[in-house]
Formats: sequence, structure tokens, C-alpha cells
Amino acid sequence: GVLGSGDFARSLAVRLVCSGFKVVVGSRNPKRKASLFPAAAEVTFQAEAVKKADVIFVAIFREHYSTLCDLADVLVGKILVDVSNNTEINHHKESNAEYLASLFPACTVVKGFNVVSAWTLQSGARDGNKQVLICSNNQEAKRTVAEIAQVMGFTPVDMGCMSSACEIENIPLRLLPAWKIPIFLALGLFLCFFTYNVIRQVIHPYIREQKNKLYKIPIEVVNTTLPCVSYVMLSLVYLPGVLAACSQLYYGTKYRRFPDWLDQWLQHRKQIGLLSFFCAALHAVYSLCLPMRRSHRYLLIETAVKQAVEKKMTIWVEEEVWRMEIYISVGIIALGLLSLLAITSLPSIANSLNWREFSFIQ
Amino acid sequence: GVLGSGDFARSLAVRLVCSGFKVVVGSRNPKRKASLFPAAAEVTFQAEAVKKADVIFVAIFREHYSTLCDLADVLVGKILVDVSNNTEINHHKESNAEYLASLFPACTVVKGFNVVSAWTLQSGARDGNKQVLICSNNQEAKRTVAEIAQVMGFTPVDMGCMSSACEIENIPLRLLPAWKIPIFLALGLFLCFFTYNVIRQVIHPYIREQKNKLYKIPIEVVNTTLPCVSYVMLSLVYLPGVLAACSQLYYGTKYRRFPDWLDQWLQHRKQIGLLSFFCAALHAVYSLCLPMRRSHRYLLIETAVKQAVEKKMTIWVEEEVWRMEIYISVGIIALGLLSLLAITSLPSIANSLNWREFSFIQ
Amino acid sequence: GVLGSGDFARSLAVRLVCSGFKVVVGSRNPKRKASLFPAAAEVTFQAEAVKKADVIFVAIFREHYSTLCDLADVLVGKILVDVSNNTEINHHKESNAEYLASLFPACTVVKGFNVVSAWTLQSGARDGNKQVLICSNNQEAKRTVAEIAQVMGFTPVDMGCMSSACEIENIPLRLLPAWKIPIFLALGLFLCFFTYNVIRQVIHPYIREQKNKLYKIPIEVVNTTLPCVSYVMLSLVYLPGVLAACSQLYYGTKYRRFPDWLDQWLQHRKQIGLLSFFCAALHAVYSLCLPMRRSHRYLLIETAVKQAVEKKMTIWVEEEVWRMEIYISVGIIALGLLSLLAITSLPSIANSLNWREFSFIQ
Repeated sequence: GVLGSGDFARSLAVRLVCSGFKVVVGSRNPKRKASLFPAAAEVTFQAEAVKKADVIFVAIFREHYSTLCDLADVLVGKILVDVSNNTEINHHKESNAEYLASLFPACTVVKGFNVVSAWTLQSGARDGNKQVLICSNNQEAKRTVAEIAQVMGFTPVDMGCMSSACEIENIPLRLLPAWKIPIFLALGLFLCFFTYNVIRQVIHPYIREQKNKLYKIPIEVVNTTLPCVSYVMLSLVYLPGVLAACSQLYYGTKYRRFPDWLDQWLQHRKQIGLLSFFCAALHAVYSLCLPMRRSHRYLLIETAVKQAVEKKMTIWVEEEVWRMEIYISVGIIALGLLSLLAITSLPSIANSLNWREFSFIQ
Repeated sequence: GVLGSGDFARSLAVRLVCSGFKVVVGSRNPKRKASLFPAAAEVTFQAEAVKKADVIFVAIFREHYSTLCDLADVLVGKILVDVSNNTEINHHKESNAEYLASLFPACTVVKGFNVVSAWTLQSGARDGNKQVLICSNNQEAKRTVAEIAQVMGFTPVDMGCMSSACEIENIPLRLLPAWKIPIFLALGLFLCFFTYNVIRQVIHPYIREQKNKLYKIPIEVVNTTLPCVSYVMLSLVYLPGVLAACSQLYYGTKYRRFPDWLDQWLQHRKQIGLLSFFCAALHAVYSLCLPMRRSHRYLLIETAVKQAVEKKMTIWVEEEVWRMEIYISVGIIALGLLSLLAITSLPSIANSLNWREFSFIQ
Repeated sequence: GVLGSGDFARSLAVRLVCSGFKVVVGSRNPKRKASLFPAAAEVTFQAEAVKKADVIFVAIFREHYSTLCDLADVLVGKILVDVSNNTEINHHKESNAEYLASLFPACTVVKGFNVVSAWTLQSGARDGNKQVLICSNNQEAKRTVAEIAQVMGFTPVDMGCMSSACEIENIPLRLLPAWKIPIFLALGLFLCFFTYNVIRQVIHPYIREQKNKLYKIPIEVVNTTLPCVSYVMLSLVYLPGVLAACSQLYYGTKYRRFPDWLDQWLQHRKQIGLLSFFCAALHAVYSLCLPMRRSHRYLLIETAVKQAVEKKMTIWVEEEVWRMEIYISVGIIALGLLSLLAITSLPSIANSLNWREFSFIQ
């Protein structure tokens, strides 16, 4: 059974019908809404729909849960699946599912399907690994809903008892939580190094020699800043592992919890590493663009003209040649190794490596 | 039971044996064929094999279905799994599975396993998410076959009733259907812009100033053409969303179906976007190659020599320097952002994002 | 039931509790160890734990298996799950699971869960496609354990009977086995071509003309070497297919096994191809870096100065210009095509292609 006639209710009904279930939709205005649902789904009044179904998907907003109170009698003993989402993280004190359970103590409430969008429901999970997180205080009801999810083509994941409902409801609202700290860290480092480099490469020569080198800001200064950020970030990837090892050695046990800041840091290593790689890759692209610039061309021609006028035939400085060759050569190798790390962090590749291979590559 | 002794029948038997099933193979010449099958599978005459099995995989060509008519009596009540494929899309009026069902009305026919290759069967689905699409008019039979598929390590996907058989049989024959229109679109745009740029950069200077600039065609003209294609494609990604919103506003409802052309267009946005990124990336590579060319070197030396002979010491044009610095700098940032979009369109990464994160990145 | 109190036992208990199972942990010192396990798991003496459980995970080292012999009586008829790993490939003559089975002939032993790390167990398999390889001589016990694995969120894969235990135990110890030969091949080829190019570009001009060109080694020589390696590797990808076809034509059958070396070669094609792409990509990066080098700059200025002093106004060689334009242009297209091949070899993309699409792209 499906209660509701919104987007999600429609998609849910379509998917259930396609998966071979008998579906009955409960609506307050079944006549007008019937056209929105697939023909194989029976659309009727809410009370009737509830009577005919054992598992009922409650696809209505939390604000309207109380309107279901009229159905309390017929709902006794049924499994209610709360599929609702909030609009803000921790908007209400108790999760929607717990609120529903408190309204209908005679029902078994299961939280689930909220992490799936109406669009995914309708288009089918042909790409296979879409997960449905499920929690409930009743093991039996949880298993029933998990089986329905499996038949619908999703991977049910058991999230334990109802107290996880709040966590599950927050998942569709989270916005790259693992990336926030690393990104602000990278931006902060970039700003610091950028300021330092502007002072060093633009302001200092202007004050000392009155040379206008403002044109260096968009590319050359950025290009000197990026590898600094990349290096610091890379070291921040490997530092917490060392600190954790020290802490374990100091306390003589590996079962003592790390302090929170270290734990957080350890969990963000992958993101910090990827940002470090991103900065290194940008540095490579900026460096490759250097000879394309007009300023590079002009400086080259000016040097040549000066040499020609002064009839100096040779300007070859062996040391500088070698420094540049080695710098570029080592840079390419370093970037190649970082790329390898970045590629193995792709979920589909990381999953195919065992622990020994993963540590070897690291 | 498996009927047939081709590649697919063999691989199927191997896999079933490995998954712990008792397998009996029916062949018209069991003695000669026995050596092709694993030792644990019993190879016998067709009629005997059918008698011993409840679920029978019919691994023979559609053209030979009629040869099974002699077995009609023993086949009564069995589940026949049609695993056949066609060589052309919509080759026959009715699907192979429906044809088989019409020949044996006393059997339950299930379509399935045709999207799996003999090679995948044999090598095992260790990479995990290989899907098996299943359809049948009989829910019970469908569930039985789905369970077999699951034990064999595949992910069964319920595709509804037998009328989907035709669709399922066409899947292994499709050739990147979602890419056809976007690729022709990109090629068309490329040709138009290429012609325009050849006229503008090669033919026009030749007619006006008799200058031979044919050498510009392979790199410089292509390099000016690519970003034009990329821009137009990128705008074509975002345009249909606007049109769809307008249509919804105009009709005052979001449940009205979009016209077919708009629907098609909306569904091809991902591919158009990826091609736009591909053109932008090629443009970046071509641009980076510019200073490597002989022609660039010669022009540079010629300018220097001219300046030296005329003793002009300075050729620095501040405006041109700035234009180039900003152009390159913005180009790198734009390409970086497009790369981010392209990476998040990888299935394994897209699956790990929720809707809010996906829209944020878009 | 879980026997043991190490990292793996703890993580296993946590995961089982989270998945809704009743867990009892057997320890030799339940009082001291109880704090390590989740509160919902009952920690007691080994004999008591065994009595209460039907399925018992033996999470102790092979060396301590014999300490369980005291429990032989209570273990009768139970399912023992061997989750152990070795520290070396083929360390013992018989696999741990077979050794356990020989110690407790009255129990049913199932091998499984050893490919999952304690960390994966604890953090949850939210990324979905983590596999658990299972083998046993008893189909019923295997199915029970497979169901437990499924409820825990893993994908159980049936690996047949107990003789596969050795293979399963070796999996977490393997170190990129498919990459070993291709990588040594690539290194060997690189060394050969590198030596040849050093002789040709550095030693030969030194001996003949006493010119010191040592600076060419880190970049220019490497850059000439990489495409040679890439070409040879690419041809080694397509050669074995031709040889296999010839062998099939010669013997007139496709059911004859290929000789071992050809079989091995055929199976390493993907890795060889990816290394070929890697070399080609490195060649592209090295080439793009050429104009960034000091040596390039000096040579350019020297030529310009020479020309200016001799007042030669034109140095344009049409043939060299064209050769370079075409070389770069074809290079970019070739690298673009190779990138396409490399991207389609990503597991998550390869899985979404059917056979016809895959061969088309190849």
C-alpha cells in the first residue's frame, strides 16, 4: 500500500508494480488522482487502501502525519514504512520515523527508501548498486521491507534500530561533509602562500626597482603558489599516521581511542590527498602554459635582440640547463606517482584491491 | 537441465556446477559431446535430461526450437529458460521467448541470462555487479530463476512480464544508443566551424595577400574550431532544462509529458556534456602543443632577427600580455571545473553522491 | 558465536550485532575482554559460548587451533567458519580450513570472510560491492553462511568445495599478480630502448664531434624512449589474438586449449595495454615540457643571434613545418583514442557496456 499522491508516491507505485507487487494507493481524492498512477495500481480511499495492504508506504509530509490519525483503527498491526525527508539537518527534535511511531504505537514503523530519489525509483536501478538504508526496532518488519527493496532492485542495508532514523534522515541532506574541512584548509593555505608570493614577486621588485610586474599575478604567482599548497597538503596526509603510531606506542595499546581531532584528521586523509593531487595537477598545467604566453615570447625576443646587438654569440649556462632538466623530469615522475594514487582511490578500483596491494601502492 | 551443446551451454553448465547445482545436459549426441562438459554434469539424451530437471535452460538457436517438439510431452509443467539472442535488432516479429512459449503452451517460459556472455559465465562474475534481466508471465517461475541467478553470483533484475522479452533480447545488440545523436551533433558542429575557420584563416589571407598559410590547417584551425564546438555543446546541455521549466510554467503542471524531442534532448544531456568536455580537453592539449611546433619557432626567430637588424630594443605590448595571461588563466579554471563535472559522471562516483551533492556540483 | 578476542573478532562481533544477530563471544578470559566488545554481545567462556551458538566464527590463529580440542564435545554438529589468513602464500601444506576440519571431523567447516579486513567489517560495506568468498563441502552450511554474509551487507560468492580453501586463503596475500609480467616487460623494453637512445643521441655525437650533450639524458632521451616502449607494448596487445586465431584455424577447432604461454599472454592483454597507454601519456607530457626547458630557450636565442648577425632574414623550411604539424596532430588523435580505451577499461564503465559495444570501441 502507498499513502500519498506526490512525486515520490507515484514513482514508488510505478516501481512496485514493475517489480511484480500488487499495489493499492490510498488518496483523499482517488478519482482525481487515479490518472497519475499506473493502470495496474488500484487507487482508492485511504482507509480502504490500508485495509487491503500489509506493508504501507507513508509518502506524505511530516506535517500531515496527524491527518492519518483517523485511520488509527485500521492501521493496527500494519507495517508502516516512513520514506520522508526533511529540508534541514536536525530540523525536528525527533526523527520523522520516531514521530510517526509515537503517533501510531500499535503499528510497526520502519524507516527506509528516503535516500532514494523519485527519479531513481522511476528510471530503475539498472546501474545496480543503489543502496536503501533501513532501520526499525522490529527485526521481522525490517526483514520484510529489506526483501521488498531487494526485489525492487536495490541493496538493502540494515542500519540497526530506530534510533538510527535521525542519521538516515540526515543523509540526503548532507553536502560533501568529508570535503568541507580539507577544502577550507586548501583555500586557507592557498591564500597564505599567494599573499607571500605576491609580496615577493610583484610588490618587492616594484618597491626596490620600480619594475611593474603586475602581469605575473594571474599565472606565474598562482603557479608558484600551487606546489607549496600541494606539498603541505601531502605532508598533512602522512603526518596523522605518524602521530597515531606515536600515541599507540606512548600508551602501549591500540585499543585506546584517539583524541577526537586526530580521529577526524585520520578520516580526512583521502580528501586531503586528492586535493593535494589536484593542486599538483593544476601546477603541471600552469607550468605547461608558461611558454604559450605573450610575455614569454617578448622576453625571449628581447634577450635575443640584446645579444645580437651586443654580438654575444653564446649564452649557454650549463648549470641552469641541468637544473631545469632535472626539475621537470622529477616533477613528471612525482605527478605520475600521485596520479596512480588518485586512480586507485576511485571506488570501483579501490574495491578490487586487497589490503596488501593497497598498502603496496600507498 | 541444459539443452544444447554450444559455447553458451557449456559455460552455463560449468557455472551451474561450480555454484553447487546438480546439472544434467541434454544433447542429441551425448557420447560425442560429453567430453566438452565438466565431469560433474551428466550428459545424456534430451528426453532423459528433461525428465530429470525442473528448470531447463534452452541454449539452442531459435531456428532449432521446433526440433524440441518431440519432447513436448516430457516438457509439460517444466520451467523453460530462454537464453537466446538475435543477430539483428527486431529481427523477428515476436521475441524468441514468446515464440518458445507459443510452441510449448504447457510450459512456463522465462526469458533471462541472454545479456550475459559465455565468457562472463565461465570466468565468474567476481567483479560483482553483472546483472541478469529476467521476465516472465509467471511470478513463481521468475522467482525461481532469479534465485538461481543470485546463487550463480549475478544480480537478477525483474523486468516484468513476457512482453518485455523483446526489449531484453535487443539489449545485447544495442550499440551505444545514447551516444549516436550527440556524436553526430558534435561532428556536424565541428564540420561547420572547421569550414568557417579554414575560410577565415587560410583561404581569405591567400586571396587577399597571396600568403600561403595551408600549414595552419592540421593544428591551428582545428584548435580554433574545438572551443567553438565545446561552447555550443555546453549551452545545449543547459538549454533543454530551461525549455522544460518554461513548458512547465506555461502549462502550469509538472505532470504533463514533454514533447518527444525535448524528452530525448533531456536524456542526452550527459553525453552532450561529456563530448563538450572532450572537445575542451582536446583544445587544451592542442594549445599546449602550439609552442612545440617548428612554425612557432621560425616565426619567433624571424621576429627576433627583424628586430635586431632594425635595432628596436623593445616590443613589449602590455595589453597583449595581459590579454593572454587572463585568457590562459580563465581557460585552466574552466577546464578544471569541467573535469570535476566529468569525474562526477563516472558511475562509481555518481552512485556515492546524494541528490543535493550532485546538484551542488552541477 | 565468535571465538577469539583479536581485532577481527571484535569487528566481526560489532558487525553481527549491527546486522541484528544475537552474538555470543567465547573468550578464555571473558571478564578482562568484555569491555572490548559491544554491549549487546554476550562475552562468556568458550565452552558456554559454543553451546549457545549454531554458527561459530573461529577468529583465532591457526597455531592455536589445537587449544580448541577441549571443546570437541560441545562442538559436535556445529558449523565452524574459518576466517583465518596466512602470512605467506602456501605457507602450510594444507589450508587452514582443511586443517581445522581434520581436527574436528564432527563439525561442518566453512571457509569465508578472510578476504574482508577488520576495518571493512567495522566501517560497514556502505560502498556495496565487497565480496565474501565462501567454500565448503556441505551445501547447507555454505548456504547458511552465505545468508549471514548477505544480511551483513556483503556479496557472498560460492567458490565450490573445500579444496578451494587454499586458493581463497591466498587471495589476501596476492600482490597484483596480473601486473607482474607486464611491468617487468615494460621495464625491460624501456632499458633496451633507453640504452640504444643514449648511445645514439649522447655517446655517438660525443665521440664523433666531441659535443657534450649529456643534458639530453633526463628528458630528451627518455622522451624518445617512451613511444618506442608504447608501440611495442601496443603491438603485444594485439599479437596474441592473431596467434590464437591462427592456432584455431590450424587445428580446426575452438575447443582445443591454447598452450600455456599463449593463454597467459591473452590474459595479460589488458594490463599490457594500460601500460602502453601510460607510456604514451608520459611521452605526451614530456613532449609538452620540451619548450619549457632552459636548453630550448638558449638554442632558440643562439639561432636568432646567429641569424641576426649574418643578416639572414628567412629560415622557414616548409617541409619541416609540415612534418611537425602532422606529427603533433596525429599524436594527439592517437592519444585521444588510447584514452578512450583506457577509460572503458575502468571496471565501473566496462560493466555497463555490452559485448558488441566493447568490441566496437576496441
